[in-house]
Amino acid sequence: MSTKVHLLDSGTLVIDRSQMLWNIDCGTPVRFPVYSVLVEHEKGLFLFDTGYDLEHVEKVLPFEQPIQSQQQTIPEQLKLAGFEPGDVDYVINSHLHFDHVGGNKYLTEATTLIHKQELRHGKVPEPFERLGYSDLGFDYPGVKYDLLEGDIKLADGLWLYQTPGHTAGHYSMLVELEKDRNMLFAGDACYSQENLEKEVIAGFHLDPTDSVRSIKRLKRLADEHDADIYGAHDAESFKNFKLAPDHYGG
Amino acid sequence: MSTKVHLLDSGTLVIDRSQMLWNIDCGTPVRFPVYSVLVEHEKGLFLFDTGYDLEHVEKVLPFEQPIQSQQQTIPEQLKLAGFEPGDVDYVINSHLHFDHVGGNKYLTEATTLIHKQELRHGKVPEPFERLGYSDLGFDYPGVKYDLLEGDIKLADGLWLYQTPGHTAGHYSMLVELEKDRNMLFAGDACYSQENLEKEVIAGFHLDPTDSVRSIKRLKRLADEHDADIYGAHDAESFKNFKLAPDHYGG
Repeated sequence: MSTKVHLLDSGTLVIDRSQMLWNIDCGTPVRFPVYSVLVEHEKGLFLFDTGYDLEHVEKVLPFEQPIQSQQQTIPEQLKLAGFEPGDVDYVINSHLHFDHVGGNKYLTEATTLIHKQELRHGKVPEPFERLGYSDLGFDYPGVKYDLLEGDIKLADGLWLYQTPGHTAGHYSMLVELEKDRNMLFAGDACYSQENLEKEVIAGFHLDPTDSVRSIKRLKRLADEHDADIYGAHDAESFKNFKLAPDHYGG
Repeated sequence: MSTKVHLLDSGTLVIDRSQMLWNIDCGTPVRFPVYSVLVEHEKGLFLFDTGYDLEHVEKVLPFEQPIQSQQQTIPEQLKLAGFEPGDVDYVINSHLHFDHVGGNKYLTEATTLIHKQELRHGKVPEPFERLGYSDLGFDYPGVKYDLLEGDIKLADGLWLYQTPGHTAGHYSMLVELEKDRNMLFAGDACYSQENLEKEVIAGFHLDPTDSVRSIKRLKRLADEHDADIYGAHDAESFKNFKLAPDHYGG
């Protein structure tokens, strides 16, 4: 079986453009997509990020104006791709911000792969990170963590690369495909093509110097592995994504 | 002679409120004051920060909408306090951002006291620091630097305390007075009382974790030394400042 990638639509949120592109165009609200990446690999079913939990955002961050249909929840999106929550073997969170962990709670059969430093920061954040790490639903009773450090080969053609700065232990994921171009999922290390082109980081971050370094790393990785970079919140590029039930590779 | 402090008005600039208070109230422009602190001490005449150079800001950062009269330049402000540029023995820059170094060029008889890491970063900034460090006028031919590290006692009742985060080598200055309350000049480690009360840092920074730590340090220092904290850009507090030709202490 050759690897397939399914992109799962998780709805949209609103932030200021100056939060997508640090200190640029303050006062310009932008609606942006949130999505998850399901990798169907011969070694198992991997889900990279899990969107946001609508109830949490409506309660804790209503100013981000969430729009998420029932169809855009993780269980429904998995169904679109031909699976159900119990089929997922590994959940990988690029980082533990609320809009990347909202569906973890459905995936209780899976092992959660996360950077060790990320789990520490998620549980004891800096004061300016409190809203980002406000949804602790990923830490459900009985969760099975596999705590990672460094760059990690998960399986043939499936890698996690350290891209810290946005948060303490941020990972980006490379998927090599036989029948499509390789895909490098940047997570929040690079929200959009505009961040990539301008080398401007997001307005939310733990360490801006590391953040710039990670954008440069993503460019080098994409070049070395002949991959396209997929930002986590790119309204423009998202229009051309092949979303589930469509897929890449396979 | 007992120590006197003269506050020198250096005009105003405009930034977004989300740049004064990181990620808060995006899209709300705020006009704020820039000022310098002249300390008349028996060991010499010390000038902490030197405002901005109007021509530089009009050319490089016109979007900050500078308003600075001839009366608000460093030579004129020194005259108001009874001095001229050649009288200044030491220029201390809290840090090397353009709105804290603009008058250094007039003070060519003085020794420039600056944190060693700050001078390094000022000359080789991170990409997101380029505008902040855009005025290299402080580095005029023949400038005499005294490069500092750690907390420093400059003279009796006159101290520099390390408060990094906003920039790599940021200093705040404590002045002990006989006839007034002690004064702790925070520089950009704390723009305003609102930053202090909310413990929210400015939107421009090199290291947000250090920045929070420095706000907490300023609070402890003020408590230990029975001092009032003066933020560098506090429009509200500025209304009650005794500006030159008035003074504190003495």
